[in-house]
Amino acid sequence: MAERKPVFLVIGAGAGIGGHTAQRFAAGGYHAVLARRSDEEGLQKLVDAIGDAGGEASGRLIDALLPDTIEELVEDVERSIGPIECALFNLGAQIGNRALADTTDRIFELGWRLATYAPFRLARALMPHMAERGRGSLIVTSATAAVRGNAGQHSHAAAMGGRRMLCQSLNAEFAPKGIHVVHALIDGPVDAPDTLGKMLGDKFEGFKSSKGEDGLLDPAAVAETYWHLAHQPRSAWTHEIDLRPWTDTPWWNDN
Amino acid sequence: MAERKPVFLVIGAGAGIGGHTAQRFAAGGYHAVLARRSDEEGLQKLVDAIGDAGGEASGRLIDALLPDTIEELVEDVERSIGPIECALFNLGAQIGNRALADTTDRIFELGWRLATYAPFRLARALMPHMAERGRGSLIVTSATAAVRGNAGQHSHAAAMGGRRMLCQSLNAEFAPKGIHVVHALIDGPVDAPDTLGKMLGDKFEGFKSSKGEDGLLDPAAVAETYWHLAHQPRSAWTHEIDLRPWTDTPWWNDN
Amino acid sequence: MAERKPVFLVIGAGAGIGGHTAQRFAAGGYHAVLARRSDEEGLQKLVDAIGDAGGEASGRLIDALLPDTIEELVEDVERSIGPIECALFNLGAQIGNRALADTTDRIFELGWRLATYAPFRLARALMPHMAERGRGSLIVTSATAAVRGNAGQHSHAAAMGGRRMLCQSLNAEFAPKGIHVVHALIDGPVDAPDTLGKMLGDKFEGFKSSKGEDGLLDPAAVAETYWHLAHQPRSAWTHEIDLRPWTDTPWWNDN
Amino acid sequence: MAERKPVFLVIGAGAGIGGHTAQRFAAGGYHAVLARRSDEEGLQKLVDAIGDAGGEASGRLIDALLPDTIEELVEDVERSIGPIECALFNLGAQIGNRALADTTDRIFELGWRLATYAPFRLARALMPHMAERGRGSLIVTSATAAVRGNAGQHSHAAAMGGRRMLCQSLNAEFAPKGIHVVHALIDGPVDAPDTLGKMLGDKFEGFKSSKGEDGLLDPAAVAETYWHLAHQPRSAWTHEIDLRPWTDTPWWNDN
Repeated sequence: MAERKPVFLVIGAGAGIGGHTAQRFAAGGYHAVLARRSDEEGLQKLVDAIGDAGGEASGRLIDALLPDTIEELVEDVERSIGPIECALFNLGAQIGNRALADTTDRIFELGWRLATYAPFRLARALMPHMAERGRGSLIVTSATAAVRGNAGQHSHAAAMGGRRMLCQSLNAEFAPKGIHVVHALIDGPVDAPDTLGKMLGDKFEGFKSSKGEDGLLDPAAVAETYWHLAHQPRSAWTHEIDLRPWTDTPWWNDN
Repeated sequence: MAERKPVFLVIGAGAGIGGHTAQRFAAGGYHAVLARRSDEEGLQKLVDAIGDAGGEASGRLIDALLPDTIEELVEDVERSIGPIECALFNLGAQIGNRALADTTDRIFELGWRLATYAPFRLARALMPHMAERGRGSLIVTSATAAVRGNAGQHSHAAAMGGRRMLCQSLNAEFAPKGIHVVHALIDGPVDAPDTLGKMLGDKFEGFKSSKGEDGLLDPAAVAETYWHLAHQPRSAWTHEIDLRPWTDTPWWNDN
Repeated sequence: MAERKPVFLVIGAGAGIGGHTAQRFAAGGYHAVLARRSDEEGLQKLVDAIGDAGGEASGRLIDALLPDTIEELVEDVERSIGPIECALFNLGAQIGNRALADTTDRIFELGWRLATYAPFRLARALMPHMAERGRGSLIVTSATAAVRGNAGQHSHAAAMGGRRMLCQSLNAEFAPKGIHVVHALIDGPVDAPDTLGKMLGDKFEGFKSSKGEDGLLDPAAVAETYWHLAHQPRSAWTHEIDLRPWTDTPWWNDN
Repeated sequence: MAERKPVFLVIGAGAGIGGHTAQRFAAGGYHAVLARRSDEEGLQKLVDAIGDAGGEASGRLIDALLPDTIEELVEDVERSIGPIECALFNLGAQIGNRALADTTDRIFELGWRLATYAPFRLARALMPHMAERGRGSLIVTSATAAVRGNAGQHSHAAAMGGRRMLCQSLNAEFAPKGIHVVHALIDGPVDAPDTLGKMLGDKFEGFKSSKGEDGLLDPAAVAETYWHLAHQPRSAWTHEIDLRPWTDTPWWNDN
């Protein structure tokens, strides 16, 4: 009987960082579980592509805003597929710029539910399993807004700032239990048709070429760095890392 | 007819930083509006003490967790008392150390409602008034957990990290409209009977004397710094400031 | 016989922050000692203006780059004028933007000598006196370059980054001995004829008006904040504070 | 005729991070040039070990404190061995804890010369070559003291704080020219006999076992992360990364 593969779980598995990281882990011998909210067809395409390349993958549609969805996903994967060795929380909460007066209660709360509360729920469901095994890793994709607020970012920055402090808190409790927590600061635009592409619509290609060669974060490259981080031996763990294209000004510099 | 005094509004007006700042502003010629959730008697004592000292003050009991309470408070004060020149958001969300497994959904959400969402609501209600006048200031009392997460601080750090990024976002939108936003990092224990005192109970006096002379933040001293910040001319504004007792190790140093 | 006044010492006493802080402390009852490298006439004018306003002041010309000058100044002031209760290190090391290839050894070292080594020397000379008295304060004027490097700032940022870490180290050793160390992040242009004025020459007025009303840091306002900080009771000390004009974008935001 | 290998140059090539990174790059197809100040025998051992493993390496003894040594090394390697594709600046300036009164001018300046000035000199010599080729990477090993000062760290923190801001300045100027600059924050003790081992002497083994299993940073693991960073495609570069053992408290948390 075949040995069970270790499991890689990603919440927020679009065609960008989430999908590419799933591919990378599947290529490296993991069973990749891809979870996203909608677009069953798109999800199936990602799963099939991994299978076609000789990897193992499953897809799940879940709405991370609903009660118990994340929790049940974790339990179900652990029970029916195998031990989650690495999880990637990859949902963002970017809603574009919006003045305070236009930031409704609903929007502000939605930012928090997606960007702060959902990774907390994932961690709370996942950590007991990993702690029992004394190993595992949780990578959280984060954004510039986690380290600086900006006009129009009231919802996004508050949610991401909370996310960053949550990751530090998780790291403080769980690193000594053998669980590697990574806060990955994506400090530039990602070449991702499902998120930035949808946000910009038919302006996406123009935006992309305005950025020049290699001017958007290649999600496959981010995936490779995530793979590296997830496999750092525990004697040399990274908690925070930034990533941006070579031509992009870091968040602390002026444009 | 007497000229109306400028108004100072504090949400979270206990016997610590909130109450002392109200006293300081009343002594400086403001009408101080003190809002807190409970303890009508304690609130009245604070209001009376300000009156006895020749100042003007009003008290309001509001539950910042309920819908519309903060919003109605702002509208009511603006209409019935006068223009709010300075507001202090002074509610914390410290719940003591609590492992992830013991951090329920309710507790995690409560932290956000008190520490991130409530100041957002205050700002959204207040900023239009201040922006119309082209001046005003909003001071937000914050905590160490806004800049670093720690074991047991999952709820508190996530909420305070969100608060800090919210303040930066508010500053980015409203400073150029003449509104001064301050994020005040209280990086040490406050000599406050209503919060730390209640949390520690009969261990408070022992804790206090273990800290030595001037080893707790004197809320009157914090109030004096808040008064200074609120009156900085707009050519030289502070957005972030830290405050701690001389014997207390800053958050970035080891104990 | 008259009681001796407490002494305020400023190194870098031009017509900007240094001179105005000297005026503020003299008005508050200190004997102000103003030290600068050159322009004896300008120095005398500052000293005379303080005297004309009823204050006490002395001027000293010293070259902070030469050995023993800072050290002898401290000893001499302590012996001949009185105990230094507050010192302000106010020398900058801004040399304008300069590509790496144009940053000579001499320039790079000069930045360090002025911005990192000189305040170290001041602290080493001063701290034993203050520690013996169990009180005193050292305020260090700093710059945006202390928290982020930028193109063309190789010398300035390296020197200021060193300055900031030095201030944290001084605070860690000396705060528990009763000495208040402040790192003041001046994050915007100062309305200072002796520094920015000289750097920009006849473009200064145009620059100033391009910034709009109150668009440059008023050095008198900075001085008022320094006065406040120097008089915070030791139960509530600030170590780091930022200051910028209302219309100026904070260093962490985009322009 | 054989194609020339790309060159990896490390300054500070002891038996810890420097030596292991050289090994890793040699194994990956680079010619590794190992430079250090002394111990010709130890250096030869490292070079031989790389050769025995089928790699290419050269050793150089240079004193980074002397004028022109770093500059000549770069020119000589470029001319006689080949284009430097990746350089690692790996000299520290840790001198143990030392009170301000015991921090002599010589020690304070030495810290700067080793930790701030030397990497500046390396960058100034190296960048023109890399800029001409439009590619290359410079990794700078850094330390906790780059982000927080501490008692007894006056020299070390000032020097490392300068180093960090220098790296940000280099990144701002040279990233858009295709050169990857990395500031690697080593936030924990390294299992390195040549540095920590020598500092602790016969207490090293006791210290090591007190840290528990995998409780010191394994330099081979750090080398693997450096290898990864040096090979990130330019669409997804990391500028700052932290590294620490799983059981080690991050610098921002209490012990």
